[in-house]
Amino acid sequence: MTPSERQPPTASRRSRIPAFEVMRITDEIARRRLAGHDVVSLCAGEPSARPAPGTLKPAGYTGPLGTSPLREAIAGHYRDWYGVDVDPARVAVTTGSSGAFQLVFLAAFDPGDRVALASPGYPAYRNILTALGVRVVEIPTGPETRYQPTPELLDAAITDHGEFAGLVVASPANPTGTMLGRAELTALVEWARTRGVRLISDEIYHGITFPRTDDPDPRGVTAVELGSESIAINSFSKYWGMTGWRLGWTVLPESLVAPLEALASNFALSPPAPAQELALRAFTDESYAERDAVVAGFARARALILDAAPELDWGAAAPSDGAFYYYSELGPQLARFGSATAYARALLEGADVAVVPGVDFDPLAGERAVRLSYAAGEPAVAEALDRILRFQAR
Amino acid sequence: MTPSERQPPTASRRSRIPAFEVMRITDEIARRRLAGHDVVSLCAGEPSARPAPGTLKPAGYTGPLGTSPLREAIAGHYRDWYGVDVDPARVAVTTGSSGAFQLVFLAAFDPGDRVALASPGYPAYRNILTALGVRVVEIPTGPETRYQPTPELLDAAITDHGEFAGLVVASPANPTGTMLGRAELTALVEWARTRGVRLISDEIYHGITFPRTDDPDPRGVTAVELGSESIAINSFSKYWGMTGWRLGWTVLPESLVAPLEALASNFALSPPAPAQELALRAFTDESYAERDAVVAGFARARALILDAAPELDWGAAAPSDGAFYYYSELGPQLARFGSATAYARALLEGADVAVVPGVDFDPLAGERAVRLSYAAGEPAVAEALDRILRFQAR
Repeated sequence: MTPSERQPPTASRRSRIPAFEVMRITDEIARRRLAGHDVVSLCAGEPSARPAPGTLKPAGYTGPLGTSPLREAIAGHYRDWYGVDVDPARVAVTTGSSGAFQLVFLAAFDPGDRVALASPGYPAYRNILTALGVRVVEIPTGPETRYQPTPELLDAAITDHGEFAGLVVASPANPTGTMLGRAELTALVEWARTRGVRLISDEIYHGITFPRTDDPDPRGVTAVELGSESIAINSFSKYWGMTGWRLGWTVLPESLVAPLEALASNFALSPPAPAQELALRAFTDESYAERDAVVAGFARARALILDAAPELDWGAAAPSDGAFYYYSELGPQLARFGSATAYARALLEGADVAVVPGVDFDPLAGERAVRLSYAAGEPAVAEALDRILRFQAR
Repeated sequence: MTPSERQPPTASRRSRIPAFEVMRITDEIARRRLAGHDVVSLCAGEPSARPAPGTLKPAGYTGPLGTSPLREAIAGHYRDWYGVDVDPARVAVTTGSSGAFQLVFLAAFDPGDRVALASPGYPAYRNILTALGVRVVEIPTGPETRYQPTPELLDAAITDHGEFAGLVVASPANPTGTMLGRAELTALVEWARTRGVRLISDEIYHGITFPRTDDPDPRGVTAVELGSESIAINSFSKYWGMTGWRLGWTVLPESLVAPLEALASNFALSPPAPAQELALRAFTDESYAERDAVVAGFARARALILDAAPELDWGAAAPSDGAFYYYSELGPQLARFGSATAYARALLEGADVAVVPGVDFDPLAGERAVRLSYAAGEPAVAEALDRILRFQAR
């Protein structure tokens, strides 16, 4: 099968809904005020008589794609970390990466389209796509490709299932922690380009990485750098630890900015405003240093698990290049408990240690594996490992 | 056409996606901890090593339907305002009412289903439903039904378009501010029940009402009280003025709780946590008093517009029972400017007053009308009215 050059993918038909006009007028009001006009707005359905601080703190809507200062700050982050120039107009701030996934999937894919995902993988990709009528093609992966898709695996899947409209990749990946190096991600971006496939790169764990000192891409490689039609999705939840604030972003091809804005102005109105205010502090030297210290803690917790691995007597494990996950087959423990779900349940009930059975991430082979998150830190991981070993020795 | 008793509506086929198992295990961990167990969790992908307050404030995920205390507090609000007992398990906290609409529409409707909406109405209903593959049936309404749908209008629309899967009503409505009294809402709920139609009641403007002193339902009538299959949607954005925090809720029929939780755990993970914390303060006597004082301000701003209406020389206007909207046909001004869009543009450019043309709310007749929001308060409304009169006198 010779891949031919295809047209770049377009926005979905279903994204052709009108933007919420009020939000557009709100932008125009802001522009007029910046230009010195004294505008009286009877436009937004937004109570301006706000409660006193102390009871409910004031916070108004922002634009549907976030505030300009935050979009500019995120573009600056791409310069600082990756040396890439990104037009802030291509940055859309979203309600967590979850908000980005739903809007991007709506903007990029129509019902009946096929989208390929590595299995094991983050379950919400599959479940959001399915609920939106998109057909998910699971690409089974294993240790031989570091649990990542490759052009060869994708070509084989097209032979089996037909053409794809999209491909979602993640590096570092959840649940395996494995990463796509520059060569591997470049090969996938190039494959997607020649196939006319929309590539979506989940980069939410960038920065939570355990690179060798000579790694030229210590934070991870962003798809933004490799292809103008690629979509990158990221968040303040993981590296910056702001999970509960629900704030993320996506860097879009120019052709998807207007469709995403129309969708966001109807589906979300705006991302959370206080979170956006707070996130402006994320990109300082002080904040990066603080977060890197947290990552160093993850590295120590990770080392505890890697050191204990032989004693755990489980099966093959993913290398855990980044994120804070250790994904391992259960090996001999599987024979004893029958399934990962049964193992996880017995471990929680018998030793009060919670781990996640692989079925969440892999409908095909997940009952053989568990995911350990070492985000809880060194002491929790040490205690858990101790309990697991005692539990298994019973 | 004789309406026959139908089966109650069921959850959509597309809502049959698995809940995110990690979120379920997180709940189980919480239960074990409450029962006194010392659980070590290697479960959630949530950095527990948090940054110091002062840089990025810590906030973790909550359950996908919100925290228990907030769900209980919202149930308490139904007792306080409406005298209705609501099981907190039927309350789902969402990312604004926007989050509730998208999740409820996904849980209740499949692609190809028909859902009826009053026109004029909030444009995001139409646009979210359309993007999700649901066919929208616009019910044209006017002053003769206070811009609200009636069983008669709905029956006529079924004759024209075929059966509906759902009906969305709003009281007070956006953009008209008109309300459904107890008798009118009861008739619609009963109509929906006998037709097997899912009724979704947008109650986001409850409490922003201008009732007569003898009104037995001064805050509005909730559909929760009238039918066990009705869905109510509300928010902290309007009465409580927390727009930018993006926090809302829905009260669901029991049969939709699990589908909504599965959808929420994949589409959103959790509503914003700091907003949920803050919203616990919304239901105190002090907060209600504070907010009612704000509503009294809206009432004064509303009176300014109603008083100025004859002088404005526009056409028929909706009665503006609640919310903070005044929706009016443009009458003679329409002849002068050609369309509401042209009028709004000329007014913004010529007098720096922003109003919204009706096309946002009514694709059928919206070019004849404009919406004024008096949420901006008395001084802004007075200044705007003054500028409009001078602009029209030019």
